[in-house]
Amino acid sequence: MSEQYKYILDESKLPKAWYNINADMPVAPAPVLHPQTKEPVTPDFLSVLFPMSLIMQEISTERYIEIPEPVREVYKLWRPTPFFRAHRLEKALDTPAHIYYKYEGVSPVGSHKPNTAVAQAFYNKEAGTHALTTETGAGQWGSALAMACNFFGMDLEVYMVKVSYNQKPYRRMVIESYGAEVYASPTDRTNYGRSVLAQDPDSPGSLGIAISEAVEVAATSGGTKKYSLGSVLNHVLLHQTVIGEEVLLQLEMAGEYPDMVIACTGGGSNFGGFAFPFLRKNFTEGKQTKIIAAEPAASPSLTRGKYAFDYGDTAQMAPIVKMHTLGHTFVPPTIHAGGLRYHGMSPQVSALVEHGFVEARSVNQLATFEAALTFARTEGIIPAPEPTHAIRVAIDEALKCKETGEAKVIVFNLCGHGHFDMAAYDAYLKGQLVDYEYPAEEIEEAMSHLPEVAF
Amino acid sequence: MSEQYKYILDESKLPKAWYNINADMPVAPAPVLHPQTKEPVTPDFLSVLFPMSLIMQEISTERYIEIPEPVREVYKLWRPTPFFRAHRLEKALDTPAHIYYKYEGVSPVGSHKPNTAVAQAFYNKEAGTHALTTETGAGQWGSALAMACNFFGMDLEVYMVKVSYNQKPYRRMVIESYGAEVYASPTDRTNYGRSVLAQDPDSPGSLGIAISEAVEVAATSGGTKKYSLGSVLNHVLLHQTVIGEEVLLQLEMAGEYPDMVIACTGGGSNFGGFAFPFLRKNFTEGKQTKIIAAEPAASPSLTRGKYAFDYGDTAQMAPIVKMHTLGHTFVPPTIHAGGLRYHGMSPQVSALVEHGFVEARSVNQLATFEAALTFARTEGIIPAPEPTHAIRVAIDEALKCKETGEAKVIVFNLCGHGHFDMAAYDAYLKGQLVDYEYPAEEIEEAMSHLPEVAF
Repeated sequence: MSEQYKYILDESKLPKAWYNINADMPVAPAPVLHPQTKEPVTPDFLSVLFPMSLIMQEISTERYIEIPEPVREVYKLWRPTPFFRAHRLEKALDTPAHIYYKYEGVSPVGSHKPNTAVAQAFYNKEAGTHALTTETGAGQWGSALAMACNFFGMDLEVYMVKVSYNQKPYRRMVIESYGAEVYASPTDRTNYGRSVLAQDPDSPGSLGIAISEAVEVAATSGGTKKYSLGSVLNHVLLHQTVIGEEVLLQLEMAGEYPDMVIACTGGGSNFGGFAFPFLRKNFTEGKQTKIIAAEPAASPSLTRGKYAFDYGDTAQMAPIVKMHTLGHTFVPPTIHAGGLRYHGMSPQVSALVEHGFVEARSVNQLATFEAALTFARTEGIIPAPEPTHAIRVAIDEALKCKETGEAKVIVFNLCGHGHFDMAAYDAYLKGQLVDYEYPAEEIEEAMSHLPEVAF
Repeated sequence: MSEQYKYILDESKLPKAWYNINADMPVAPAPVLHPQTKEPVTPDFLSVLFPMSLIMQEISTERYIEIPEPVREVYKLWRPTPFFRAHRLEKALDTPAHIYYKYEGVSPVGSHKPNTAVAQAFYNKEAGTHALTTETGAGQWGSALAMACNFFGMDLEVYMVKVSYNQKPYRRMVIESYGAEVYASPTDRTNYGRSVLAQDPDSPGSLGIAISEAVEVAATSGGTKKYSLGSVLNHVLLHQTVIGEEVLLQLEMAGEYPDMVIACTGGGSNFGGFAFPFLRKNFTEGKQTKIIAAEPAASPSLTRGKYAFDYGDTAQMAPIVKMHTLGHTFVPPTIHAGGLRYHGMSPQVSALVEHGFVEARSVNQLATFEAALTFARTEGIIPAPEPTHAIRVAIDEALKCKETGEAKVIVFNLCGHGHFDMAAYDAYLKGQLVDYEYPAEEIEEAMSHLPEVAF
């Protein structure tokens, strides 16, 4: 029997609007606080870093926000992305479950990140911004924003965590191929970078340091440069909802509706972009899809962190937001191969987990790579380390179905390919990866540094 | 105005047959000769290395050969592949030309190679083969065959040129992730490998040595292992024609027919797979599409080689075929970043060039990387070094149209993404790449080693 593997949307079906979950959030948002005064920030404070159009999206409660035509024209270079029925994986697992996955790895940089990078570049260009700054860890976000800035004729400075800059040069090269500048952070280009180097000239850097450098450059540029963030914030998750909106259309083509929707979470943009349109259906149409956020056991903000006000960065320069956090002083273990290493979490995702609308699960890395190889050897695609967390949970649920005999519909997001991450697979195959549980006393200690606020 | 960027075929439009150009070749094929006797080989001789079904495809003159359903089921994991109108590139070039490209980089290994890897694995499995051997240079072919063998439950030994094994480990890791074994060639696993190591323990290896090792393992396995080749042979090009057949359908969707079809050539499988269906139209329907094979100036078999009988490998173990060759002793310069380094060329492609049905052009590597960055910065996708040769020719032709004002339809094949090849871009951006012209006297010298045959 000939089976259908892919559900492909015509370009004309590319969504015309992003979905803003603020319109349907069952809980009121917590205020965003100034890092020094600890009072709610005004749009003016944020406007040093972001164009007003993005700040307005951050606080908008409109349900749908139109995707500007120039953004859609760029999206068309790879969107709509394909949606697959995982027949071969189902057979290998011998499960009655129907497993589907959305594949964002077909974007030119191999991940979902351009969905918001292109939008942010567009709105900045529209606002007259000539240059952006950003940070990047292994380079996934930096390469997406480099491509986007190039499309809109803007300069970009990327502060890349030094240890990644040196050890994972491929994405650095991608960033440079699109014409952006990359600096190994900490640099001597910023006050904060110089202060770090003064204390430790051999500092390997961290995402926290890189954020602070990128923010400082934008904040002290006299308005010529703005700052761009690749996750966590509401407008970032908003732009990613183009993923979930496409999946809703593709599930219609397949004639199914999911019992379970699964996505991995680091800062929350992949999860929000994939799951929020399904939450809308849960909230407004009485659907009862189980929504699962899969995070690494080595960086377990949702499952072991506290839902509290905390700084967005290590240097306490970013606003204070209410979120699941491991503490802004948290340093993720370097033994972990994946990229889901942020100490905090999107405030929207955090609130949804806190109030029971989303279930959070943590997964150990050895189990994720085992699942990743099962996936690669059946479906062909080698996943990036991040979505392997979603694959692990999806396989676990499919195996439960095998026991119960239930033909549940399980849908997950494969947010990127692993072609830049083969060293992690190599380490796994050589038995060099280990699992890591962050010690409870260290989390406890980090929690003692949370800011005291009146909200 | 909203423009259409992609022409996407539904899975149901996946071609059901490959196109065999032997049916329409305007010139008779030259015989394939035994490397020792120099007499025409029989199918029995080849059956040590290949299953009879593939040997029969090699010599078939049937116009269409049905794609077996199990092969189509695997193809569906990524096929049909997308076909793009390069609106953004056209605008950047300010050309009236209509530029289209087929994109094979969406396959799980990022290139067109699985089209034949899957077919070869299937036919071998069907014939009772338990294991395959092959060689690979930078790993593109090895990773494709590793994926394919895994799908059909067969073992695979890959002999990977040692210098690539050490310097370009990512594709080696991809091969291992699919469960195949990879050896840095020359190895001590074969007589030929041991003889090379005895002469030079630090030999960096070469594709010629790796071919000889893979062939030796299969030939001496007592029938338990067969050998698989990723280019050059007729059946390999046959399997790749699924690309061109899809493009014909996609051009219909776009309502255009090409004035020019361009593909890069190393051994010829990418070129044949893309261009042969258009040659059918030229031969049988009176179309007059110009068909251009783009090859590197540093390995110019079509443009500077001789159309003559030569060995397929350096060790003179492979059959002698009539082709454009730089001589089986030719060693391609290591300065060239691309993978198009074979001394010979597909006999079918060679005959078509020799008799004027295909135009061959050579391109310098600095010009290809310049074109690649123009492409990446407009269309988003970073191309593998091989298809940059086709892009260079396509851009040159589009710029000619700008001068003449002609709105020619130019179609090329983007046979893979460059995510595994970023080091080449890095070298280009740092000014470390140079152009290389193979000295005429060295080609002359290599020609003096061609075998003397009676045909």
